[in-house]
Amino acid sequence: MSDTTTRPPQPAPGGSFDLRALPPDELPGLAHRLRALLVHSVSRTGGHLGPNLGVVELTLALHRVFRSPTDRLVFDTGHQTYVHKMLTGRADLFGGLRRAGGLSGYPSRAESPHDLVENSHTSTALSYADGLARAARSRGEERHVVAVVGDGALTGGMAWEALNSIAVSDLPVVVVLNDNGRSHGPTAGAVGRHLAALRRGTAVSSVFADLGVRYLGPVDGHDIAELEAALTSAREYRGPVVVHCLTRKGFGHAPAEQDESDHMHAIAPPSMPGGPEWTAVLGEHLVALGETRPDLFCLTAAMVEQTGLGPFARRFPDRVLDTGIAEQHAVTCAAGLAMGGLRPVVALSSTFLPRALDQVLMDVALHRLPVALVLGRAGITGEDGPSQHGAWDLALLRGVPGLRVAAPRDATRLRELLEQAVDRDGPTALRFPQGPVGVDLDAVSRVGGVEVLHSASRRDALLVTVGSLAAQGVAAAVGLGGQGIGVTVCDPGWVLPVDPSLIALAAEHRVVVCAEDGVRAGGVGDAVAAALREAGLSRRVRVLGLPSEFLAHGSRSDILRLHGLDAAGIAEGVERFLDRSAA
Amino acid sequence: MSDTTTRPPQPAPGGSFDLRALPPDELPGLAHRLRALLVHSVSRTGGHLGPNLGVVELTLALHRVFRSPTDRLVFDTGHQTYVHKMLTGRADLFGGLRRAGGLSGYPSRAESPHDLVENSHTSTALSYADGLARAARSRGEERHVVAVVGDGALTGGMAWEALNSIAVSDLPVVVVLNDNGRSHGPTAGAVGRHLAALRRGTAVSSVFADLGVRYLGPVDGHDIAELEAALTSAREYRGPVVVHCLTRKGFGHAPAEQDESDHMHAIAPPSMPGGPEWTAVLGEHLVALGETRPDLFCLTAAMVEQTGLGPFARRFPDRVLDTGIAEQHAVTCAAGLAMGGLRPVVALSSTFLPRALDQVLMDVALHRLPVALVLGRAGITGEDGPSQHGAWDLALLRGVPGLRVAAPRDATRLRELLEQAVDRDGPTALRFPQGPVGVDLDAVSRVGGVEVLHSASRRDALLVTVGSLAAQGVAAAVGLGGQGIGVTVCDPGWVLPVDPSLIALAAEHRVVVCAEDGVRAGGVGDAVAAALREAGLSRRVRVLGLPSEFLAHGSRSDILRLHGLDAAGIAEGVERFLDRSAA
Repeated sequence: MSDTTTRPPQPAPGGSFDLRALPPDELPGLAHRLRALLVHSVSRTGGHLGPNLGVVELTLALHRVFRSPTDRLVFDTGHQTYVHKMLTGRADLFGGLRRAGGLSGYPSRAESPHDLVENSHTSTALSYADGLARAARSRGEERHVVAVVGDGALTGGMAWEALNSIAVSDLPVVVVLNDNGRSHGPTAGAVGRHLAALRRGTAVSSVFADLGVRYLGPVDGHDIAELEAALTSAREYRGPVVVHCLTRKGFGHAPAEQDESDHMHAIAPPSMPGGPEWTAVLGEHLVALGETRPDLFCLTAAMVEQTGLGPFARRFPDRVLDTGIAEQHAVTCAAGLAMGGLRPVVALSSTFLPRALDQVLMDVALHRLPVALVLGRAGITGEDGPSQHGAWDLALLRGVPGLRVAAPRDATRLRELLEQAVDRDGPTALRFPQGPVGVDLDAVSRVGGVEVLHSASRRDALLVTVGSLAAQGVAAAVGLGGQGIGVTVCDPGWVLPVDPSLIALAAEHRVVVCAEDGVRAGGVGDAVAAALREAGLSRRVRVLGLPSEFLAHGSRSDILRLHGLDAAGIAEGVERFLDRSAA
Repeated sequence: MSDTTTRPPQPAPGGSFDLRALPPDELPGLAHRLRALLVHSVSRTGGHLGPNLGVVELTLALHRVFRSPTDRLVFDTGHQTYVHKMLTGRADLFGGLRRAGGLSGYPSRAESPHDLVENSHTSTALSYADGLARAARSRGEERHVVAVVGDGALTGGMAWEALNSIAVSDLPVVVVLNDNGRSHGPTAGAVGRHLAALRRGTAVSSVFADLGVRYLGPVDGHDIAELEAALTSAREYRGPVVVHCLTRKGFGHAPAEQDESDHMHAIAPPSMPGGPEWTAVLGEHLVALGETRPDLFCLTAAMVEQTGLGPFARRFPDRVLDTGIAEQHAVTCAAGLAMGGLRPVVALSSTFLPRALDQVLMDVALHRLPVALVLGRAGITGEDGPSQHGAWDLALLRGVPGLRVAAPRDATRLRELLEQAVDRDGPTALRFPQGPVGVDLDAVSRVGGVEVLHSASRRDALLVTVGSLAAQGVAAAVGLGGQGIGVTVCDPGWVLPVDPSLIALAAEHRVVVCAEDGVRAGGVGDAVAAALREAGLSRRVRVLGLPSEFLAHGSRSDILRLHGLDAAGIAEGVERFLDRSAA
């Protein structure tokens, strides 16, 4: 099937082809062609395959029953919108999916008026729908608002906050519950169990009905006629209603259906570089620590494998908790575990840290609890686009009282810093990027808590690198050394709060440059500058980092280069700053 | 009743008196004496009266059925723990309630081993309970864990995240649902409606049972015997169970029972200074704007009156949404409203901003939507303690792409900046403290977007003040002028991102000092320093602000003074910095 290139019907430029006029008996063929295009494209570009294979019929039915963009289609976690994109004029563009300048892997308002919500964080669609429906009513516009949410999204608290509000309204909000029984893994907890009971018909009542929202279903999510009937009924109801659609992730593509781990949720592009991943090093070392520390307990929010917790979960199944897509609960439950005498490690993607920032501040830090946050996919993630980069973690964690933040530069330092984090009688965070961890980079000397990775006889600049940027920093320094510019490269390991030894080191150099793969505003470089200021040391400081912007999708290395964070960019940044400081 | 000073029985030092041995017929008398002490104390010190009057019998029953601290009592939103404090050895200390050095208005681990969770943000207790119960099981300890949560707390999503996790466990977690039908106002939304149906006995099923948690109740929360029977049954069950207790806020004290607004939820100490409050100015001007802008729509999270939205809600009831204690939903619903063509204003307390930071970043800012956040109670709030101060807002908002932050210094500027915020085609935030707004402070001149409030012939220091600290800044400058030190005081109004005019102004002065009532780490002063650095201007910068610490309760003016943010402290900060910079 993957070599089929037959295209689905294409719309006229700027509009949607008349899917609504298509005779029902032509729909299965169209669904088949859409699946063929999905498999053909995504196997070449990488991307979310399983979720999109699962919503082919559902997306067809949605576009036949509702009139986008007059009716508002809000897709929760927009990686399930490939079929929607194909049906709204973008089928020809899938060759460039997730590539710089190409089609986004998520909805994009720049691409189409049919796309509304670009954020890929889950559980937001119901809240958007509430707002969109209230706005339409307030402006006297006739619109239906449809929120397409996964069963996993209902494990996120904000979905319930929205339901609490929508349920007592008379807004024409149709909640399409795309229930495939899983997010990455099987949907965690009571919500998953309750939906399963609804699927089997063994539930006495539904939580939706209890909360006063009409419940329709369950509906076979691969039967277009049945879907259209249910969605039409929901549309005519003109009040808040849940349509419970049963779909199967990976449906219609045998390899995805048979992949028991996550039904080809996301597949990497063929060119992905090799070598052990940061998360693999983490997972292996957590198991090693777990063998000697019975108090170690790991938590994650619906990403056991993706965060590297898989090996620990298999070795110590009683010492791991998957909270579902519920970062808030994960962090505060960890606070409770720590209060109860354990040493919890909460493994999250960096991009989701803001979801639980209040809990880090008020539930963990205020109580000075030994919770270790482990933030993977920090900095630039690459092809998943603006809402997946982890650029804010350092700036957000900087002001959290008593919390120490580490950024390991390689596998050895990840192991060391993880042990120190778990040993510490207070809150900690570790952050590292996605992808392969690369080779170890040993120190040439040490000043207090700071490791010196490269030194020169001239002391023109002190270059402070954060985490994995150490390699680029050393390469930059070696290059500058060839031009007679002396750069000392150092890695504090624990980057926040600022190690006092950095101030002593800075005093021995003309200028200080910090390189970090996070936003410059309020990050490590800013903190170093503030520490020098407060110590009364008037060294000039330059921060090389990310701007306060939402960065488009592209490869990690391309985006780092674009922002001057590859070796050449760092070298140029140091050299220019020295020139300017001399002037 | 308020002049009764009879004390409840007092425990032996360090322990709890034997409440469990007290004959049942003595309990009503004890409850009466506890209420008398509550009314007597709180009318003098200020504090949360209504909620505590409502839980007298419930707290007695809890301490009779469970053995604290072996059994863990976690109180959600700890302002309901006055009776718990009285019963655990602290009745004599209520004269110093909420005063510097005195009894905290929330649980405090420094005060007692019976206190566990100090955070006053709601909806966290179930998550703590989940963690505490798992830790006890992992360590082989025999403990019951009791989470006392209000009905309002169930409008917060993280309570559902926790329930999702607890419900599929066999942990001995007793959820005591203290249902008084309201948080500040009546409990918003479907949760409130469903609980009301359970109260009346008209519900077909309960959401708790649907999710697989045993449900007991409803129980009369003022009948000690009935409470004890239900709690004993819950204790013996040894699995997750909800005990639905019906209480009445303000119960047993006629003035509180009769207060229809919020049953004397919180009462201010008699010494509260007068004059119009910031929130009153906000509320009045929102109404004025609403008259001419039909697209203005206001949202808040269970704090209609406290945030100043009351007048708007009464004038335009169709253009206001109270989401319940659900900041996440409030912000993303606002994003939906803005996407739908309206101009939403989300009024929150600054301390709750971290609850919705991900939504500000990913749902509002990523989509460049015109949502105005209005953050009251920013900076130092005073007597409510560490988890109520709003010290992080500036630092957290600084890195949010495209978002502008204003800090009005007085009523006139609040009106102006609010209008500019609502007019702007992008996200904004306004922040101001609690309490009286004080008198207007007019500018003497203007440089670009920056208002100069005080100037001198000598240009020793440029003092940049944030919001209401302008008054202290001008007073400091006047004082320093008398000593021959020339200080220009300026107020950018829009404090983030940094106005370029500030750089021009800084270039005309020897040093720059910033004064802000937020954490120094990553705040406005840091941003000014970074802007000067990036402009290549090597002026020395000093930031006067708050440390990255959790600040204890005390009066706002005392805390500001303690941290050098009164007029004398600012003057001293400027003078010392000039001395040091000259050296």
